[in-house]
Order: sequence, then C-alpha cells, then structure tokens
Amino acid sequence: MNFKGRDVISIEDFSREEIDYILKNSESMESIALKGSKILEGKILATMFFEPSTRTRLSFEAAMLKLGGSTIGFADADITSVRKGENLSDTIRTIENYADIIALRHPLEGSAKLAAEFSRVPILNAGSGADEHPTQAFMDLYTIKKEKGKIDGLKIALVGDLRYGRTVHSLAYALSLYNIELYLISPESLRMRKEVFRSIKDRISIIQDENLEKVIPQIDVLYITRIQKERFPDPTEYYKMKGVYKIDLNTLKTGKNDLIILHPLPRIDEISSEVDYTPQAKYFQQVWNGIVVRMALLSLVLAT
Amino acid sequence: MNFKGRDVISIEDFSREEIDYILKNSESMESIALKGSKILEGKILATMFFEPSTRTRLSFEAAMLKLGGSTIGFADADITSVRKGENLSDTIRTIENYADIIALRHPLEGSAKLAAEFSRVPILNAGSGADEHPTQAFMDLYTIKKEKGKIDGLKIALVGDLRYGRTVHSLAYALSLYNIELYLISPESLRMRKEVFRSIKDRISIIQDENLEKVIPQIDVLYITRIQKERFPDPTEYYKMKGVYKIDLNTLKTGKNDLIILHPLPRIDEISSEVDYTPQAKYFQQVWNGIVVRMALLSLVLAT
Amino acid sequence: MNFKGRDVISIEDFSREEIDYILKNSESMESIALKGSKILEGKILATMFFEPSTRTRLSFEAAMLKLGGSTIGFADADITSVRKGENLSDTIRTIENYADIIALRHPLEGSAKLAAEFSRVPILNAGSGADEHPTQAFMDLYTIKKEKGKIDGLKIALVGDLRYGRTVHSLAYALSLYNIELYLISPESLRMRKEVFRSIKDRISIIQDENLEKVIPQIDVLYITRIQKERFPDPTEYYKMKGVYKIDLNTLKTGKNDLIILHPLPRIDEISSEVDYTPQAKYFQQVWNGIVVRMALLSLVLAT
Repeated sequence: MNFKGRDVISIEDFSREEIDYILKNSESMESIALKGSKILEGKILATMFFEPSTRTRLSFEAAMLKLGGSTIGFADADITSVRKGENLSDTIRTIENYADIIALRHPLEGSAKLAAEFSRVPILNAGSGADEHPTQAFMDLYTIKKEKGKIDGLKIALVGDLRYGRTVHSLAYALSLYNIELYLISPESLRMRKEVFRSIKDRISIIQDENLEKVIPQIDVLYITRIQKERFPDPTEYYKMKGVYKIDLNTLKTGKNDLIILHPLPRIDEISSEVDYTPQAKYFQQVWNGIVVRMALLSLVLAT
Repeated sequence: MNFKGRDVISIEDFSREEIDYILKNSESMESIALKGSKILEGKILATMFFEPSTRTRLSFEAAMLKLGGSTIGFADADITSVRKGENLSDTIRTIENYADIIALRHPLEGSAKLAAEFSRVPILNAGSGADEHPTQAFMDLYTIKKEKGKIDGLKIALVGDLRYGRTVHSLAYALSLYNIELYLISPESLRMRKEVFRSIKDRISIIQDENLEKVIPQIDVLYITRIQKERFPDPTEYYKMKGVYKIDLNTLKTGKNDLIILHPLPRIDEISSEVDYTPQAKYFQQVWNGIVVRMALLSLVLAT
Repeated sequence: MNFKGRDVISIEDFSREEIDYILKNSESMESIALKGSKILEGKILATMFFEPSTRTRLSFEAAMLKLGGSTIGFADADITSVRKGENLSDTIRTIENYADIIALRHPLEGSAKLAAEFSRVPILNAGSGADEHPTQAFMDLYTIKKEKGKIDGLKIALVGDLRYGRTVHSLAYALSLYNIELYLISPESLRMRKEVFRSIKDRISIIQDENLEKVIPQIDVLYITRIQKERFPDPTEYYKMKGVYKIDLNTLKTGKNDLIILHPLPRIDEISSEVDYTPQAKYFQQVWNGIVVRMALLSLVLAT
C-alpha cells in the first residue's frame, strides 16, 4: 500500500483496508515515539493554524520531531498575511515552498480540500470548520483497537453534540466501515448531521436516542464530546445544552466492567474528575495515541 | 570575499561585486535547499519580529533549518518585554546571548541599524519601517537573473506604491548598480521617495510615468507591489489608490512574450488570478528564491 | 548526587549541597553552550507560557537546543485550550504526552506545584505568580559566584520591590543557605514578604532599610529589581513607587571598586544606561549565565 504524497483531507477518502494499514503502522510507531528517530531527518512540517488549537498543533509538531524532522508555522490567523487580505490559495502557494508537508487547521468547511488543490506538497487536515478532523478519527480508532483488541463486534456510543462537533462526524464515518453497532446519543437539537447519517445508515445498525442512562449497560465504548460554545450561532442555545450529559462514578457503576470512556478533549464538565483514576478512563491515553497515529501518517505520506 | 560576522542592514552597504557573489552563492544553495544539510548544525537563528510577517519569518526559519541549524524567536511584539517597557537595545543585548544570528523585523525606520550597533552577533534586517528590506532585494535580483539569465541590459518597471513600499526602495537602489533602464510607474502621490530617486538618478536612465499601459510593450520585467493599507497615514487616500494598477490577461497580450511578472506578495488584487497560470507569472517562484537567497546570506555570515 | 526525574518548583526544595552541585555543573556547561552538543538529542522540551515572557522562554529554548534537544510550546495563554475552559491539570496531562520535560510559566501562585503533582514528566517552574522563579535564583547565584569567586562572606543588597518581585523571594531564600550579610532595601510598602523574611531570619544577619545610599559603600553585590506595574493591585501605588531607586554613575562612585550590579531584567529606568559600560554592570552577562544554568538543570533532570 502506497501513501506517498497523498493528502489526508477526509476520513471518507480511505478504505477500510487503508485505515487498517495505518492503524498497524501506528502500532509500530509506539517504540519509536519513546526513543526518537531520524526517519524524517531534513524534512520540514509547516503547521498552519488559522484557528487556535494547542493540543492538535503540538501533537503534530511532537510527532514530526520524534521522527527527526523539524517544524515551522503559526498558531493564530492574526499574525499572518491574512490580516493584509491574502486569500488561502496564495498563502498555501507560499508556504509550500518552505515545507515538505503542511498540517492545516482552518475555520471554514472545505478549506483543507481547497488547500490540497493548490498545494504541491501533501496537506494533512488538522480540522476544517465543523466538517472534518481525520487525524482525530484515526486516533480514536487506534485507541479503540488498542484498548479492546478489535473494532468489529463492539457497541459504541457517540454522546453529546453530534451536530457541530467535527470529531464525531469523521469518527462516525470511519466506524461505519467496521462491523459495529452505533449509538448516537444527543439532545434533539444536536442530532447527528443528516448528511453524515445518510452516508452511514445503510452500512451499520444505528440507534438514535436522547437518553444516555438507558444505553450505558449495553455499550463497550462511550465517546463523549464537549458541547462547543464557539460553534453555536446562538449562545442561549449553548447554555441550555451545556451539562446535559455528564459521566461520573455512578454512571460507571451501571456500565460493563470493561467499558472504556473516550473524549477528544478539552473537556469542561462532561466527565467528572473522579472518573480520571478509574480503569475505564482512556481519554488521556488518547493523547499519546494521537502522536503515534500522526507519526504513522507523516512517515507514510513522506515515505522516502 | 569574506562576509563572516557582517550585518545585513541595507542593500546600499553592498557593492555590485558583493551582490553578484551573493547571487552566485544562492545558486549553489538550490540543491541544498531540496535535500537539506548540516552546514550550520549547532547554530541558532533568533527571529525577532516586532511586526507580524509570517512569510518573511517562515522563510528565514526554513532557510536556517535547511542548513541544519535551529531557530527560536517571537512573532509579535505583544508577547515580549516591550510590553513591560523595555527598549530595543536592551532586548538585543538579551537575545544576542541566545543566538548566533538575529533576523529582525521592526516597524521603525533605522531600527535594524540601531540593533546592529548594540549586537555582538550579526543582524539580518528583515524589514525596518518603510525604509529597507534588503533580503527581499536580493531575492528579487536573484529571480530576475535566474529567469532572464542576466540583469544588465534589461528594461525593468517598478509599479504601484513607490513611496511607502520598502521593497521597491531596496530594489531600486540595487538595480542602479546594474546597466538597466528603470521605469517608475506610480500615481503622482505615491512617487518614488526623493532620497531614493536622488541616490540612483545619476547611475541609470529612469523614466517616471503614471501610465502603465504605455510602457508594457517595452519592458522585460514588471515588478508590481501591493498598495499597503497599513502604511497610509490617511485611509481615504488608500481607498483612492487601491486598484489603480491591475495586471490581467489583456495586459499580458500587449507585452513581450518573455515578459516576467514579479510581486513581493501578499497581493490583494493587483494581479488577476487568471495570470497565475501563465509563463509570465514568476511571483510564486520568487518565494522559493527567497529561501535560497537567505540560505546564502546565513551561511556566508555564519561561515565557520 | 542524582537529579533524574526531579521537579524544579521552588529553590526551597534544594539543600546547599545540591545548589553547589548545580552551580558546579553549570560551569561545565559554559564551553558546551558555545559550541553546541548532542547530549539531549531526541528529547523534547515543552515551554508552556500562560503569561508572556520572551526572555525566560527563549532562554529555556536556547538551552535545550544547545544540548541537541528540540522544543515545542506556546507563548500565550490566549491560544490554548484554556480559552475553551480547560483546567491546568488537564492541560498538563495532555502536554506530558508530547514532551520529556516541561517549563511552565503561570500567573497563579502554586501553579507549578499543582502541575508537578499531575505530571509524569519533570516540571521546571519558569515563574509562578509572585511566589517563585527558581531558575532565576540559580542564575543569580551562579553570576555572583562567577564574578566574585565565592558567595560566602559577601554583603549582598536586594533593592526595590521586595514584595511583589518573585525573583527576590527565591534569591533571598537561596542566599540564606550561605554565610552572607543580607541588606533588604525597599520602601516601607514594598518590604520583603513576611513569610520569606521569617524563613530566612534565623540563618543569616539581615539589615532592612529604606535608604540605599547609606548602604552602597558597604556592599559587594547590588541586586536591583524593576517595580513591576503588572503586579500592583493599584496603579496609583505603582506610580508612587516607580523610580524611587535609581543607579547611575554617581551611585557607583560611592561604592566599592569591585561592587557588581545585577538586575533580573527587563529594566525600565532603575539603572541609568551610562552604567551599562562600567565594569560593575553584570546584568547582561546574567542573561548568558541563565542559559548555562538552565542547560545544567535540563541535563541533570533528563540524565540518561
């Protein structure tokens, strides 16, 4: 399988075979992540973050450094030529001269796709508007597989804001390539986007519900998201929804013993801090997994 | 020729022989820029940007990384001690301890010169107020020589804001060392600064005009600049001037077949995007040339 | 003596023997700082600066680069998940996955201690609120020892804001482990904090005074601090205190010939610029010393 020079824009561009290959490759990055390497020595990653995201940006940078490469970039649209009125395609055609690969975070949907059309170097989508965040989906899949030993056969619940949260869109699509049962738990007004729902509904069995307690006893993986204030057009709507789902020790009591809790982070109060020290809590381990997955993608796309 | 330890403050500090030497050295950096090197391993570049400029900052950083060195720095005056009231000379006498060379961008004219007086390590002026931007001039000269095979004998037009645009001041001076014909095309109120005009007028033949169309058929190189909103004391004046010159496919039709179009970027709407795919468009290639020129300067000044 | 994996939170956690060991180790870093090394190749330092401090951040980064390691980080709380409402312990449990060691600057007292409780990787306190700044204290001690050949037996004055200035708290404690005479010179309202005073008063002889001129002839080391506007709850109070002590050539005339002047920088007007070129001025040399001290700490804590 050859990923050299390939853009990573949407999880939908990848077949199940390709995803499995990337997850397998991520596994082999675990030991390299611990001790460092020179696999990508002399290569430069540009992190172009038009929207702040320390977590994702530093994850890409750490992944590149652990492979022996180096990084340049910006963390805020405010300090770029955009302030002088430059459009994205011109910025891309500038930065592509400086770097061997670009990780792009941009507030507009479709921005990563547009960037890839203009760029000679590969684009890794690090989050585009509310639509896609494919490296997060790879990280989530990898965490499930690492913790449960498999993905097929699991009952997996996505909980919280399924409308604006881009991580759940990419993840739902990816999960639909596996033989799983998917629970979509959200308030009525934050239901999974229709276009995502439509694209996955014929491939797997889906249960939609507002009630989290009811499904807890049945599921193997609980993936809960932050209600993202910054994505709500109306703040009143946000304050109504905030805190509607909350995981605490009582929640865990009603679940399976080997239930695992995932969260894309940052969390606000969706998961009580008392849960952090239970064996079910895997959300901080996910952060580490994000590095190995990104190391795999960087090394596959920049393969020499 | 020995550039070790030398500051690069103004293009006017360089003789034609020195400029030619730097251009020749830049040529030899082309292949190193592609594959990386360890020429400056262990050396540190500090990028001190008191004014945001992602393009120039990342170009310096990429150049340093491709030479095997590393970088530290800041991208915004706001996050520095300046906020605590520190003056530039104290900041320089701090940073010089951290780095082997400093690339400085500062909004005040004369700032780079002042910094060089205080600094023990070499200062590369990455833009000081509206007066000088010497590495941009080296990049422009290198692009012309690379694309046309020579600089002597060419008819070169500088178009747009010749008053506030610092890149044209450095470039006009540099071009006056060659045997060229210079066209200065601008509105009356944005004419080339008198002190620049005076310093070059005895060395080369200069045609000043407001009309771009008239000169297009005669010229070999068209260098157009953005009307820079942020340099205008009066915004009304800016909106009157904006868009006064615009290059599109029709413009190209009246020009020579081997005319080349340069622009220091970012562009707003001075060049129609339809021009991007013509053989005349060289403004994105210029970005790459900026890296090799800065690699040459870094390695010459830090020569071991 | 083994520092591997140890947090550096407060100077009070170190015995005199440990401090002497670190100072000795710093000495051996002087030559490595000049030529670079690969001692920490493959290791990553994360600089988490929730409060801007270009000076301290770049010093840590330069120290890490000179040891052959690399760096990631942020320079402003504004661009982090904190804006999305994340708490410090979650941020730490994220970043610890990306780095082998963390340098943390945070506006709240006790923040570094809290971070160390949550972090698996060592935390270097790069300034927490108004309480502690231990690497600055190591730098100050190292400068005194380097310039005077010893610390024991000296008469040392701390001058200026002894209440809000965190560098003087760490330094006063550290000096109390040596056999010195300590002069605490400040206005009544900016006297040394009671808890610091109490913890050191039984170990060394202390003279408290408002009058700087009186003590100048007797002292060997004069450590003057900036009155920090940003730490004053009341700006009127700040403007009253600003400029109350000022070192100029006349001050030096009344002092010993081998008096040395230190300042943590940035200075505003506490030291007249005419003093910069006297043999007494050691405040810019301190900046260099900060690098070697931080190199020593990084290499001792990350010892392989």
